[in-house]
Amino acid sequence: MERRILRWGMVGGDLNAFIGDVHRKACAMNENAVLVCGSFSRRADRNQAVGMHYGLDPERVYPDYETMAAQEAAREDGIDWVSICTPNDSHYPIAKAFLERGIHVYCEKPLTFTVEQAEELKALAEEKGLLFGVNYSHSGNVMVHEARELVRSGAIGELINVNCEYFQEYLVDDIGNQDTEMLQLSSWRKDPEISGGSNCVGDICSHIEHTVSFITGMKLKRVCALLDTYGQPLDLNANILVEFENGCHGVFASSQVCIGHMNGLVVRLFGTKGAIEWVQEEPNTLKLTKKGQPTQILNRGMGYISPAAAGMERLPFGHPEGLYEAFANMYRAFTYAVLKKVNGEELTREDLDFPNVDDGIRGVRFITASLKSSRNGAVWTEV
Amino acid sequence: MERRILRWGMVGGDLNAFIGDVHRKACAMNENAVLVCGSFSRRADRNQAVGMHYGLDPERVYPDYETMAAQEAAREDGIDWVSICTPNDSHYPIAKAFLERGIHVYCEKPLTFTVEQAEELKALAEEKGLLFGVNYSHSGNVMVHEARELVRSGAIGELINVNCEYFQEYLVDDIGNQDTEMLQLSSWRKDPEISGGSNCVGDICSHIEHTVSFITGMKLKRVCALLDTYGQPLDLNANILVEFENGCHGVFASSQVCIGHMNGLVVRLFGTKGAIEWVQEEPNTLKLTKKGQPTQILNRGMGYISPAAAGMERLPFGHPEGLYEAFANMYRAFTYAVLKKVNGEELTREDLDFPNVDDGIRGVRFITASLKSSRNGAVWTEV
Amino acid sequence: MERRILRWGMVGGDLNAFIGDVHRKACAMNENAVLVCGSFSRRADRNQAVGMHYGLDPERVYPDYETMAAQEAAREDGIDWVSICTPNDSHYPIAKAFLERGIHVYCEKPLTFTVEQAEELKALAEEKGLLFGVNYSHSGNVMVHEARELVRSGAIGELINVNCEYFQEYLVDDIGNQDTEMLQLSSWRKDPEISGGSNCVGDICSHIEHTVSFITGMKLKRVCALLDTYGQPLDLNANILVEFENGCHGVFASSQVCIGHMNGLVVRLFGTKGAIEWVQEEPNTLKLTKKGQPTQILNRGMGYISPAAAGMERLPFGHPEGLYEAFANMYRAFTYAVLKKVNGEELTREDLDFPNVDDGIRGVRFITASLKSSRNGAVWTEV
Amino acid sequence: MERRILRWGMVGGDLNAFIGDVHRKACAMNENAVLVCGSFSRRADRNQAVGMHYGLDPERVYPDYETMAAQEAAREDGIDWVSICTPNDSHYPIAKAFLERGIHVYCEKPLTFTVEQAEELKALAEEKGLLFGVNYSHSGNVMVHEARELVRSGAIGELINVNCEYFQEYLVDDIGNQDTEMLQLSSWRKDPEISGGSNCVGDICSHIEHTVSFITGMKLKRVCALLDTYGQPLDLNANILVEFENGCHGVFASSQVCIGHMNGLVVRLFGTKGAIEWVQEEPNTLKLTKKGQPTQILNRGMGYISPAAAGMERLPFGHPEGLYEAFANMYRAFTYAVLKKVNGEELTREDLDFPNVDDGIRGVRFITASLKSSRNGAVWTEV
Repeated sequence: MERRILRWGMVGGDLNAFIGDVHRKACAMNENAVLVCGSFSRRADRNQAVGMHYGLDPERVYPDYETMAAQEAAREDGIDWVSICTPNDSHYPIAKAFLERGIHVYCEKPLTFTVEQAEELKALAEEKGLLFGVNYSHSGNVMVHEARELVRSGAIGELINVNCEYFQEYLVDDIGNQDTEMLQLSSWRKDPEISGGSNCVGDICSHIEHTVSFITGMKLKRVCALLDTYGQPLDLNANILVEFENGCHGVFASSQVCIGHMNGLVVRLFGTKGAIEWVQEEPNTLKLTKKGQPTQILNRGMGYISPAAAGMERLPFGHPEGLYEAFANMYRAFTYAVLKKVNGEELTREDLDFPNVDDGIRGVRFITASLKSSRNGAVWTEV
Repeated sequence: MERRILRWGMVGGDLNAFIGDVHRKACAMNENAVLVCGSFSRRADRNQAVGMHYGLDPERVYPDYETMAAQEAAREDGIDWVSICTPNDSHYPIAKAFLERGIHVYCEKPLTFTVEQAEELKALAEEKGLLFGVNYSHSGNVMVHEARELVRSGAIGELINVNCEYFQEYLVDDIGNQDTEMLQLSSWRKDPEISGGSNCVGDICSHIEHTVSFITGMKLKRVCALLDTYGQPLDLNANILVEFENGCHGVFASSQVCIGHMNGLVVRLFGTKGAIEWVQEEPNTLKLTKKGQPTQILNRGMGYISPAAAGMERLPFGHPEGLYEAFANMYRAFTYAVLKKVNGEELTREDLDFPNVDDGIRGVRFITASLKSSRNGAVWTEV
Repeated sequence: MERRILRWGMVGGDLNAFIGDVHRKACAMNENAVLVCGSFSRRADRNQAVGMHYGLDPERVYPDYETMAAQEAAREDGIDWVSICTPNDSHYPIAKAFLERGIHVYCEKPLTFTVEQAEELKALAEEKGLLFGVNYSHSGNVMVHEARELVRSGAIGELINVNCEYFQEYLVDDIGNQDTEMLQLSSWRKDPEISGGSNCVGDICSHIEHTVSFITGMKLKRVCALLDTYGQPLDLNANILVEFENGCHGVFASSQVCIGHMNGLVVRLFGTKGAIEWVQEEPNTLKLTKKGQPTQILNRGMGYISPAAAGMERLPFGHPEGLYEAFANMYRAFTYAVLKKVNGEELTREDLDFPNVDDGIRGVRFITASLKSSRNGAVWTEV
Repeated sequence: MERRILRWGMVGGDLNAFIGDVHRKACAMNENAVLVCGSFSRRADRNQAVGMHYGLDPERVYPDYETMAAQEAAREDGIDWVSICTPNDSHYPIAKAFLERGIHVYCEKPLTFTVEQAEELKALAEEKGLLFGVNYSHSGNVMVHEARELVRSGAIGELINVNCEYFQEYLVDDIGNQDTEMLQLSSWRKDPEISGGSNCVGDICSHIEHTVSFITGMKLKRVCALLDTYGQPLDLNANILVEFENGCHGVFASSQVCIGHMNGLVVRLFGTKGAIEWVQEEPNTLKLTKKGQPTQILNRGMGYISPAAAGMERLPFGHPEGLYEAFANMYRAFTYAVLKKVNGEELTREDLDFPNVDDGIRGVRFITASLKSSRNGAVWTEV
């Protein structure tokens, strides 16, 4: 009989974790899956706390991901997919463990430390015929999809320049701070062992790379990355010149020390016929300018939104959608494909329209190339 | 033993209904209650469809609210509260039915057609010792609470002028449209029998009244309301002069025919020491200006937000919250009080900090006075 | 022989005066007239200082306007027009004196204290065949003309609602201030004897009345004005319901005590097919929304601006024009007509396209009606 | 006897020229100088037209700059300074001619084609004891001065990142256009012989370099410039990584093909304690954010503006100043110094606070280094 409700589990994401909680609540908005198990924390008390909060079968609150992968794979009512919400260093082994057990994977970004690891995961997923989603969450916004539709429709012509930024202010006090150990304790993102060689580029600039690629289909060819660590172990600021395979140039600027900005992802795409601007902190609108014409402010929910983007809307015009809905849209696309797999249906190309392991690989390539460029004195480096 | 998870039911809100769905998903975000029953539609097929979607016990998908009230009241595991998401005309009888059966009520606004009905509900709730929440949802926004904290702290001094608006464009085509029957079919809001004598004032201007009252504590004394129907049965546009009990004056302007505005609730409060501006479509920010100082843009999630408002935040700075979170915050406050009741705990004044039946009564008074003012030629009318 | 350069004089506007100086510099931008005389101040030293600053013939720096009118009228090279930049109470006698001597008049607003005075000036100007400009300066903005062109073109359809405001903060400290004498000394606008019965409505709300009339051609029929004096002699805050002759309703809100606003004239016009928004503090842009379409941000200087408005531009796109240019545009239109008169040419209707004595009369009617409405308890009052 | 009014002349700037006209009208706003001569065009008719328009002595409308320099230097009532408003290629010889004759110079930017030429002009000016102003006009804005005061006061701490842009759209149609000759005719800026090797960087990116230097005092050390010509002779788009002498990094992005932008100079400066943002198209405001605090919108004209910047204001709060005022402020500073020179007074360091030949040299260095960097494959190049 056809299944309608999926079963899923999570690795990482205890009750204190920001992102894991967003995953759970966003996924719940789709009302098509039940969280049935997890290994939420290496600390037993925290792990159990999540299980109790969600009323999980205590046997399915696993002490580690290996056990979880093994036992869930063995159950008849085992999970249909696992979501991996741990720090960067463990994405690779966890994803590998679940893939090997034949379980679909949905993983946080950046996918892995090295390109090789990412490619190994891809090969494994392909070999096993498994789905592999990567949570480039900003792509879940309706107006990012609208931007993609506009680009595809030719509304802005051929891309000729890109100017994107992702500015935050929250680490500005790290500058000049000498207590490195304390700094690392304050966030695993500052610990090279856990975050994987990059803080700013890995955490946020990678979102620029993906969002631009998602909207335009353009792939990076090379980068010239000027990173600033201000005396800390990892980069806190990045100004990167980029060249895409099609010859289009641009700038990716990201920072965790730019006062006045909170979570300021801004994507500006310039073409021969028009331009698009999208700002993550005002996600329900999109600026579109056609050559020689007034700038237009497009609003989610209005009749002029393309059917492809409008089909994702959850609320009418003027009723703000936010981060949860972006995550929920990511999950809706991924779980729709999982459900088809589970029910033995054929997946079309359209069913696979969510950020996947290829996007994950490309993200790791971008981070790796940027770090290498910077190490060599901000020279041009192939991606 | 202490209960941790509540049980609730809904009247109205089939799968095609916008607001009912928001209630369900928002309430789910709090992870403290389970929907166990409902009477979602007078049409049996639609009613059952909701039950199936949520996997409800078919016996608890009731054909009408009277049955639901009676049977749930009789069950040992009956609902702790009912949410009423039906059109305006049925709020009163439904709320009354559940109150009479001893069940807490959470109801959409405007609460009733007449002030007498609203006061009767209040008396009944008091008599039965029941909680009665009214869903003035915009008050659930974190930055609306921040505005209230700022006013309470004296940051803007004594209120001297109020300028608020709630503009929408979506009914502009009704102007001049002669096919009244078709118009009414398109939305119950246009049908006087169902919406209760007002479209624009009842649906949206009432949000202005509540939000201002919520933030400032000021109560209206009288209004001078100039309503426009443009030939339709009900008002589509309203320009209202207001006087509060403390002598402060202002304007409430609302419209469903103002092109260029989607769901544009804007609250501007002017005091002797400062001013506040909040815009519903950009709910994560708040403008604050102190006398003679630069305007400040406050952002939800930042360290300067007052503890009372910050305690409601679900996401960090720069990660947009939207309508679902506002609703979820409404439910969090209401269900927190319900849970205490259920567990036999004493409720403090703070526990009761959610829009309640008194707000509902005041809203009906405002709508009634505005309609009366307009009927008499836009003359000053006591609220 | 045809004249190319005009001669003009000024009453009021000593070197400390804000507005008189703007008149002189703005007029100079047109490079079509020379200031040759004036009576700039009742104080001899200040009067002479202006004359010396501009290198005027000392004999043409007059001790009073009567002498100036008499002597300039007697000279062969006398002034072509006089600009009156004095406080409100002297507009009437000064304008009358120059008209009687056959000299064209350009006068600050509000034109007079009473409607009768204003109508007398109109009759006198007509009798003498003289031009009479009134300085409703905001109408000089290019984008206000663009708004008028858009309305005329039918871009927004039939007007159905108007929402305008003019908010300033600079008098907020007057509230509660008991030292009335000192207050009056600080600005003649607060002195009923000089400003003429109104501060806020006369000074700024009158600009709303004119700008709306200028753009739409609509004339006010009646007003319901709720004015606040906060214990001062004159109004500091005004919330006014308005009804136009064509039945369109709206709100004019103006204030000198609304913190966070400097010189915030905002004109919002709603029609059956579209809407327009213009903000004085950002004068180079205009928002236009067509029904069901994205809001467009029109920019002065771009190719899509209508020829009538574009013909007024002084700078290319993106190079900000400001208050001086608005004043200069007022003068360009007025002096163009004066020059034609001086050269004995026939004036077309188009040549007379500047705010004139009829606008001045209408402004006084509006102020008078608003004050009367307020005195009678904010009741509807014919304009 | 002490002079009060200066005499000046202009080279370039016929009646069709945009910038020359702005120079004349802006200078006139200061009411401290009279245009007495010029060589406005190589075309005799156009040259004479300017003379007639301003009522100049026909003998002082010179056929060429050499004659003008010689004859004005010989007159007792010769000009105090010359303003040079010609295309780039003639700045050097014209400035040289006037300096050699002992006449102060005010020149458009970019100053010269080569660094050597610029340095020669500097040496000549110093040798002759002459003033040399360079018209980096955006620095004339009050709020740019306010930004400088804020940086000097330590309000934003030590500079750690800079992100600036100057985007225009008006040349986007040049992309792919094959009719090179026609393109050059349409604007001398596209002709390498006249504009000097750069279009986009020379015309607009050079404004970024100067404005940042003006506000912060930081000097560029090296650049990595990725320029796009899109098949045209000169650059139309520039993405430049920059490093200042103090180690601060940043991006200068400028373009003449970025649709949706008119004259979009945006300066964003990030420090350890705060950040500043200024937008040329909204010149009357400035954003200031202190670490961890709400962003503040500073408005020109308000009491909190620093005395140094406030002293430059021409209009009160909320009354927009624009491009003319920025130019007028440039001239006010320069002519103030000229007047002191003319009157034989000692000039203080403060009197010399206007962009001068050193700024001109630095600008040419920046342009030269950017072009060299791009030619060599966008490699790091010393400035």
